[in-house]
Amino acid sequence: MEFSREKLKKTAEEAFAVGKDHVSLGHVAEYIPELAKADPNAFGMYLLDGEGFSLGLGDHEKRFSIQSISKVIILAASLMLRGFDGTFSHVMMEPSGDSFNSILKLDTRSNLPFNPMINAGAIQTVSLLADSMSFEDLLELSRRLCLDPEIILDEAVYHSESETGDRNRAIVYLLKSKGVLMSDPEKTIDIYFKMCSLSVNAKSLASLGLIISNNGIDPFSGKRLIAADHVRVLRSLMFTCGMYDYSGKFGVRVGVPAKSGVGGGLVCAPRGPMGVGLYGPALDAFGNSKGAVKAMEHLSRTLRLHAFDY
Amino acid sequence: MEFSREKLKKTAEEAFAVGKDHVSLGHVAEYIPELAKADPNAFGMYLLDGEGFSLGLGDHEKRFSIQSISKVIILAASLMLRGFDGTFSHVMMEPSGDSFNSILKLDTRSNLPFNPMINAGAIQTVSLLADSMSFEDLLELSRRLCLDPEIILDEAVYHSESETGDRNRAIVYLLKSKGVLMSDPEKTIDIYFKMCSLSVNAKSLASLGLIISNNGIDPFSGKRLIAADHVRVLRSLMFTCGMYDYSGKFGVRVGVPAKSGVGGGLVCAPRGPMGVGLYGPALDAFGNSKGAVKAMEHLSRTLRLHAFDY
Amino acid sequence: MEFSREKLKKTAEEAFAVGKDHVSLGHVAEYIPELAKADPNAFGMYLLDGEGFSLGLGDHEKRFSIQSISKVIILAASLMLRGFDGTFSHVMMEPSGDSFNSILKLDTRSNLPFNPMINAGAIQTVSLLADSMSFEDLLELSRRLCLDPEIILDEAVYHSESETGDRNRAIVYLLKSKGVLMSDPEKTIDIYFKMCSLSVNAKSLASLGLIISNNGIDPFSGKRLIAADHVRVLRSLMFTCGMYDYSGKFGVRVGVPAKSGVGGGLVCAPRGPMGVGLYGPALDAFGNSKGAVKAMEHLSRTLRLHAFDY
Amino acid sequence: MEFSREKLKKTAEEAFAVGKDHVSLGHVAEYIPELAKADPNAFGMYLLDGEGFSLGLGDHEKRFSIQSISKVIILAASLMLRGFDGTFSHVMMEPSGDSFNSILKLDTRSNLPFNPMINAGAIQTVSLLADSMSFEDLLELSRRLCLDPEIILDEAVYHSESETGDRNRAIVYLLKSKGVLMSDPEKTIDIYFKMCSLSVNAKSLASLGLIISNNGIDPFSGKRLIAADHVRVLRSLMFTCGMYDYSGKFGVRVGVPAKSGVGGGLVCAPRGPMGVGLYGPALDAFGNSKGAVKAMEHLSRTLRLHAFDY
Repeated sequence: MEFSREKLKKTAEEAFAVGKDHVSLGHVAEYIPELAKADPNAFGMYLLDGEGFSLGLGDHEKRFSIQSISKVIILAASLMLRGFDGTFSHVMMEPSGDSFNSILKLDTRSNLPFNPMINAGAIQTVSLLADSMSFEDLLELSRRLCLDPEIILDEAVYHSESETGDRNRAIVYLLKSKGVLMSDPEKTIDIYFKMCSLSVNAKSLASLGLIISNNGIDPFSGKRLIAADHVRVLRSLMFTCGMYDYSGKFGVRVGVPAKSGVGGGLVCAPRGPMGVGLYGPALDAFGNSKGAVKAMEHLSRTLRLHAFDY
Repeated sequence: MEFSREKLKKTAEEAFAVGKDHVSLGHVAEYIPELAKADPNAFGMYLLDGEGFSLGLGDHEKRFSIQSISKVIILAASLMLRGFDGTFSHVMMEPSGDSFNSILKLDTRSNLPFNPMINAGAIQTVSLLADSMSFEDLLELSRRLCLDPEIILDEAVYHSESETGDRNRAIVYLLKSKGVLMSDPEKTIDIYFKMCSLSVNAKSLASLGLIISNNGIDPFSGKRLIAADHVRVLRSLMFTCGMYDYSGKFGVRVGVPAKSGVGGGLVCAPRGPMGVGLYGPALDAFGNSKGAVKAMEHLSRTLRLHAFDY
Repeated sequence: MEFSREKLKKTAEEAFAVGKDHVSLGHVAEYIPELAKADPNAFGMYLLDGEGFSLGLGDHEKRFSIQSISKVIILAASLMLRGFDGTFSHVMMEPSGDSFNSILKLDTRSNLPFNPMINAGAIQTVSLLADSMSFEDLLELSRRLCLDPEIILDEAVYHSESETGDRNRAIVYLLKSKGVLMSDPEKTIDIYFKMCSLSVNAKSLASLGLIISNNGIDPFSGKRLIAADHVRVLRSLMFTCGMYDYSGKFGVRVGVPAKSGVGGGLVCAPRGPMGVGLYGPALDAFGNSKGAVKAMEHLSRTLRLHAFDY
Repeated sequence: MEFSREKLKKTAEEAFAVGKDHVSLGHVAEYIPELAKADPNAFGMYLLDGEGFSLGLGDHEKRFSIQSISKVIILAASLMLRGFDGTFSHVMMEPSGDSFNSILKLDTRSNLPFNPMINAGAIQTVSLLADSMSFEDLLELSRRLCLDPEIILDEAVYHSESETGDRNRAIVYLLKSKGVLMSDPEKTIDIYFKMCSLSVNAKSLASLGLIISNNGIDPFSGKRLIAADHVRVLRSLMFTCGMYDYSGKFGVRVGVPAKSGVGGGLVCAPRGPMGVGLYGPALDAFGNSKGAVKAMEHLSRTLRLHAFDY
């Protein structure tokens, strides 16, 4: 990185302020009752560079549900378990241009979900794991990849998910009916709901981002957690598909591998090594954290983190 | 770049051989009569690094029609003329997941085309230019950006395009009917057809790629041809949307900003500076040059050109 | 018919009053400038039984543009010229469930338009005629089928249509691009625009309805104008597809072969013989005349005209 | 009816022969394992006129599963229980132009299913009943409307349905997720699967058709089984939506209210009174019995049963 720690700290604080300023323009997700309880004004940010620098701002310790960000962990698990070909013979890698819970393309263009970053694709990817890994195994993996042994299943969110997750249940049965689902639909969807209900904070996400940025190696222990080849896949798909149907715009305006969740979380893995985790439950129309997107826009522009800024 | 000229030369030759080997698996485009006349076995490649290295292999001097690669030049022209906001208030920047000539999303999801790299989006972008720039102006710009004063309008292709381009004509009238087209439909479509009919070769494309890779500056004259801010936009959209509905897969497997055309051309602008131009009219099912994609896969993997290989 | 002329007259007057009462709930079509000039309060009705009974109410002499009702005449012409198989090998006979100007199904389900009562299907049907019949021939046929020698081309509407008919122009080029259009696109669309611009009144439509109801025979002259086999086809398609995406509901609630136009016209051909023509330019959300639909609902219910009321 | 019993008998025998001749062009449904076991050459027909005439031909006593024909009984039940408005405020009455198990329109055009004759609409209609009527109540009603006390639940088919009915399960959860389903999804889908698994024969269907043709009255007992207003609704929707995406063509070519099932059954309720039940498990591409459609074409043409042949 071409910038000093001072510049990093100063820019992060500015970015936090910019993000915080935009929080009031967003709206907390309402389609899962438990999410609707979040404080719309909450905003937190955590930044790590893997060489000892760390900075937590605002509500960076506040726990919230990981939601769609678990799709990154699910994909990592499948790459570990089944490899690249064993994964992508069951799910595609194209951005869909549709919203996260769309089934249109699944029913008109292809029997395979378009990519693992939308609901249909993540559910399908869980089905690749469900006969070999239990939820507990995936929880353990999540803790490891987020360097956060305190991640737990948020039972209230989980029950909220599984009671109101009818569209996701429709998706799993549609996949089953097309003959592509690789495990039992109820087992699959249960693990999926649980993985959406993991309780993380901005620091957990920053750590996940750092490991992805640092080529799969935990910089603190020196241990490799994800194969380099798989990290490249994660980064590419986070870049092209990580921000729902705002991915293209985020790719132009911010330009870093990222994944958002409707719980308000955002993980970013720019070239660095650097990991950024953000939390702001007030969402924009695409389901991304309003403040987190704005904060990253400032951070990327000022520190020239854009992947295509060379 | 971390590799020597020797390695570069050797790898390029290997990549060329790999690409050449795959040519027989593709099929020449048939929907425009003039394209169907291409030699399916033709294959050429040109590589430039901006510091004096250049290498031409196979049919690298063979002229062919630029087709969709002109979408990059059209977008560059609009960014120059109208700026970022003046362009993207009229066309979106999302990958669509649909084929290059799809009108589905245009008629169901949004009145604005999804991005400037698909037909609807490029036609719309031409309409942003058509009242200020003539085709001759755009031809002149194309020559400048490709460092190739010999680019001409291939009249046979142009007539072939305009006679059989009924779907594109349907698109321009659909855009007009939605009230978003910014110029006269016949004027717009005529310029679009002409821009698809520019006669280029692998070297022209390599030069275009080099300028985009070199941050918008012609490394030979030192002159800035495209603003740095606009180059970043071009690269990002080439990455997410440049290879039709294979863009996501190309992003994972090759990972460089690229744009293909059904005439068999491919331009790549990896980190470098480096420009690669390829020609192989035998296409895959997505409309991309079969050999060119395979050659780039080898080149990117061996030289570690992948944007997310950091 | 089981009812007396007195009952017929009384019911028609009631139906007219019911229709008139609903006029204020509709809105005049605005997408063609010339249509927007219509008086939203206008309402007229004409009824004929072929045995000497006729009744004109309200604005029954007011001329207006026939719009989509000409689709019935276009289909009749094609059946005469090319026969049943010669017509329906080029256009389907399925209700589409989509709006009148939809192209979705045309681009996803089938290369042939779903039926001759939607724009795409009527344009396609015109292409079956355009090399054998001039607009003047079709005008002459229209006059004959409507028993109205005074039908003329409304030049103001025609120019309004052809200037703003971009979506229809998109449709004709889409049909051309799919290789199904059977004549020149510009010639085809020009005849289509002219056929939409015929100037009729409620009496013209009542006469058209009467002839269709009377098995194709002009009851006044005793001359056969349409073959009996073709009349059955017209009635069936008017029943299943004649009221845009309200056809199913109209089929349940009113239950007579009918065709509406966005100029405010409605022709009905119930079992009788009976012909009903209505005019009310204030339209509902589906593009049907608000008052005319309500009037027919009353008429059908009271006189038991419903095709499935046996 | 204008024809003698002799003509009726003779024509029915001819129609049976025509249908039988076409049986070999169809294919037995394979998506439910139990259906795949049917004899592709089986063909039966039963005809009743309510005035003592009855005729059974071929495999008219053979029992098979009612499948989609139960949608008519489900709609009748909802009209009885909730009335016209209480039913059609929850399901639309438009033909969809899509296949019987389509969810496209449900997810793009409307939250309510397009009509009660497609899977989504029938499942939705079951949800209107499920809190008031048990399956046993519906079985009892089915027996009454088919004048067949021997109708039972075919357990093998039911288990086959419920094990492989993943797409229908997807539909019920999609309806739930849209907030329109009116009962518990599992309870609803279970009743739906059971209703598809009723074991009927050609005579049961002929009786159902006769009652619908005879204005809702059982001609043998003189008892009214369905209100006249509801019969008109059933006939209309059978006409516009009863034959999947072949409904429009059947409406033109045959022209009688009808409903088919993928078990090979077909019920017809022409003007008469007359009821026709057919059985031929070899289906055409739309899911209708190949032989039954051909037989009805002959019967309707010869006896002039077409609703729009007046």
